[in-house]
Amino acid sequence: MRLLLSNDDGYLAPGLAALHRALQPLGEITVIAPEQNCSGASNSLTLWRPLSVYTGANGFHFLNGTPTDCVHVALTGMLEYKPDLVVSGINNGQNMGDDTLYSGTVAAATEGFLFGVPSIAFSLVHKNWAHLDDAARVAADIVGHFARRPLPGHTLLNVNIPNLPYEALGEWRVTRLGKRHPSQPVIRQTNPRGEPIYWIGASGEAFDASEGTDFHAVAHGCVSITPLQLDLTHTQMLPTLREWVHGRGSAH
Amino acid sequence: MRLLLSNDDGYLAPGLAALHRALQPLGEITVIAPEQNCSGASNSLTLWRPLSVYTGANGFHFLNGTPTDCVHVALTGMLEYKPDLVVSGINNGQNMGDDTLYSGTVAAATEGFLFGVPSIAFSLVHKNWAHLDDAARVAADIVGHFARRPLPGHTLLNVNIPNLPYEALGEWRVTRLGKRHPSQPVIRQTNPRGEPIYWIGASGEAFDASEGTDFHAVAHGCVSITPLQLDLTHTQMLPTLREWVHGRGSAH
Amino acid sequence: MRLLLSNDDGYLAPGLAALHRALQPLGEITVIAPEQNCSGASNSLTLWRPLSVYTGANGFHFLNGTPTDCVHVALTGMLEYKPDLVVSGINNGQNMGDDTLYSGTVAAATEGFLFGVPSIAFSLVHKNWAHLDDAARVAADIVGHFARRPLPGHTLLNVNIPNLPYEALGEWRVTRLGKRHPSQPVIRQTNPRGEPIYWIGASGEAFDASEGTDFHAVAHGCVSITPLQLDLTHTQMLPTLREWVHGRGSAH
Amino acid sequence: MRLLLSNDDGYLAPGLAALHRALQPLGEITVIAPEQNCSGASNSLTLWRPLSVYTGANGFHFLNGTPTDCVHVALTGMLEYKPDLVVSGINNGQNMGDDTLYSGTVAAATEGFLFGVPSIAFSLVHKNWAHLDDAARVAADIVGHFARRPLPGHTLLNVNIPNLPYEALGEWRVTRLGKRHPSQPVIRQTNPRGEPIYWIGASGEAFDASEGTDFHAVAHGCVSITPLQLDLTHTQMLPTLREWVHGRGSAH
Repeated sequence: MRLLLSNDDGYLAPGLAALHRALQPLGEITVIAPEQNCSGASNSLTLWRPLSVYTGANGFHFLNGTPTDCVHVALTGMLEYKPDLVVSGINNGQNMGDDTLYSGTVAAATEGFLFGVPSIAFSLVHKNWAHLDDAARVAADIVGHFARRPLPGHTLLNVNIPNLPYEALGEWRVTRLGKRHPSQPVIRQTNPRGEPIYWIGASGEAFDASEGTDFHAVAHGCVSITPLQLDLTHTQMLPTLREWVHGRGSAH
Repeated sequence: MRLLLSNDDGYLAPGLAALHRALQPLGEITVIAPEQNCSGASNSLTLWRPLSVYTGANGFHFLNGTPTDCVHVALTGMLEYKPDLVVSGINNGQNMGDDTLYSGTVAAATEGFLFGVPSIAFSLVHKNWAHLDDAARVAADIVGHFARRPLPGHTLLNVNIPNLPYEALGEWRVTRLGKRHPSQPVIRQTNPRGEPIYWIGASGEAFDASEGTDFHAVAHGCVSITPLQLDLTHTQMLPTLREWVHGRGSAH
Repeated sequence: MRLLLSNDDGYLAPGLAALHRALQPLGEITVIAPEQNCSGASNSLTLWRPLSVYTGANGFHFLNGTPTDCVHVALTGMLEYKPDLVVSGINNGQNMGDDTLYSGTVAAATEGFLFGVPSIAFSLVHKNWAHLDDAARVAADIVGHFARRPLPGHTLLNVNIPNLPYEALGEWRVTRLGKRHPSQPVIRQTNPRGEPIYWIGASGEAFDASEGTDFHAVAHGCVSITPLQLDLTHTQMLPTLREWVHGRGSAH
Repeated sequence: MRLLLSNDDGYLAPGLAALHRALQPLGEITVIAPEQNCSGASNSLTLWRPLSVYTGANGFHFLNGTPTDCVHVALTGMLEYKPDLVVSGINNGQNMGDDTLYSGTVAAATEGFLFGVPSIAFSLVHKNWAHLDDAARVAADIVGHFARRPLPGHTLLNVNIPNLPYEALGEWRVTRLGKRHPSQPVIRQTNPRGEPIYWIGASGEAFDASEGTDFHAVAHGCVSITPLQLDLTHTQMLPTLREWVHGRGSAH
């Protein structure tokens, strides 16, 4: 199996190194990750300047751009083959519920998926890297299972792993994305010139963490696996919206 | 009605100015847009540094960050009220199908929606600004209709407008997102030091532009209005994935 | 006379607009300035990525780089002729003493000088743009005098203008650079994640503001004109250093 | 002796690692270098946003800013003592003649000097890192000699070392800065959207490489040591300029 690894914490992040170590027995691995931490990068693409690929002292390739740039460049310009799987992570912190829209980790996997490559994003729930190697072992279990038994259709999985010892982890739970309350307000400070500056605040607390959600699974010590799709159409709203348009009376 | 305007082409873009002019009769408007062109920014948030808000010679506020940053800062730190509508655009170029994942224009509207504010993103299909004022007139029609007859539930609309004279435009069509083929490959050049550099290539051609899609509507001269939602869960895949997990045999 | 104008406050800065208006009667003007404020840019050159030139709504060219990049690109790639003079400014704030090492305004002029073009940097002492048009009139006087009576040899002038009404300004004083005390310490704040962040502090107070210096001239309401050269060799120290090397005893 | 080390190639550069290894026997060392390659950064200071200091896996501190930022933050906010020497380098490529104006390596040393700390910049003439450890040994020789026999007055030295085996290196030569021809023109390419883009070209060839210059020394296999000062006043031009101003006739 040929694997393409990326992340959004940067090519020097412990989560990427742990993932690389754990997956090494499973196939041939190429790593291409951002030069710098890109947390919050979402699916952003660098359109206004060219990108360069370098090789770090750890043997990983890195690119002066975003996670999406990394996978995009690898799949369409750098690799001479189509990999069997894109693996992204292990992220320093959860990507659940609406986080998936902002996450560079999920975005790297998304990019693989859009190019027709099965893709999995892995995140470690809490930000202290506690039990990182246990999470990497889970990642290897999931990738190994995928290798032996591929999923039908296009695959895009979002996996969140609690910071627990391997033996203490619960089952793999297939989940839907929960919902969060809106984010905390920006934090306002004053810079030394007396001008206001704003820091983006923390994510909101879980609003829908009911049974079946990713929030619920990890709160119960389980590995959450959510299948993702990328069609944002609000299908149920189509009839209402048609009526609304119709209500405009005469066509404009 | 109180409107918050943003975009992803930057606070000096013609599309924003045209939108502002067209919407001015409809309410009280605050503009906050990125300092620089952020095309391709997606939902990226600036987490590693603070953001500053300035006021340009055109009276618009601008912020040294992304479209998402703009709406986030406005709604949680700058405005003292909750606006009635977030309007984003008019973008220089279409945002249809999978583009919605990468679009900073759509992302600005998404951010409003996540904070509970109805939000609409407007894009002009071709990139030459032809018939921009006609498109702005359409935007005003849609916003005006929304003002008179709000939609039930949370509203997030993605509107694409063909570059046509107002009178030549077809009806408003409620559409689903189409699909694109994968993007064109990166374009490889060599920099003057002899090193390869990569430019992100063009979007893919439409793959699903069948009747009912945004691609189909604008190809027929109509204004495409797509209702969006943000839950990426692949609901139909949940059973298959549960079976796959089960097939692993013993719990991990 | 053909003039090339640049600055470090960005192509939208009031100081550049005022300078442009004042110099317009004196010749044919091309403007190329940074897209964004580059205060503190010094002579930095953008080596890792290519530069693009755009034209703003005000007719000025702008470039996504530093003041030095602007003049460098104009002189070696954009203009089809060698201008008669590079003029930089009018800067929002003084560039005196050691400031000249950090100043992007002076750097733009320096770049012209290194390509064999006479160059003048203009700065307005205080940062509130008070009496900007008066300062622009002084700039036009100096440039006009230069046009009628060029200086022998290579010319690089650093001009600082007090914020005073034109009639209240004292004579043009030819000065040497004064000296400052070291800068104020960095200002330490804590970001919302509890981590220390540092802001570069203010410049130091004048240490040598004795008669003959730029500091002294502007403190007395005069226009300070300092001729600059770029050889950093500490000539007087050469003998001492030779002795020191010799004192090492045996050759390396 | 307490040493502060920095560079402009970034905290992961081989030149910094080699310098650190070579100087370790000579005293207590703190390293703070830029997160990314800052070649061409000159004395640029980051004024518009705060700076953060991190610690890398190699134990070096790094900062998301320029070489000048690094030394500025270390001396005024991070270190609790004043170091005995600031050492910058070993740069990947020469910094001779006019290069000193653009060099981030020299700028890091300059910043130390302006805060009253003796400072030395080291550069390896050719860019392939050949004989880096030999150069580091020379750096240790010079720093060791300085430790045993400090120079009188303020010290700012610019050292360029040929890529030669230690035994093949010639003597330490005290030099003045040579001069270069103007830089090569920008290299113009066309981006995939058909727009021109510009790359800053190579430095000019030596114009004054006569005996006594840094160019001459390294061309003869010697270690070039140039004492620097930072007063850009063109003292010899003061009388001419006074006459020019006088020639204007009536006061301003």
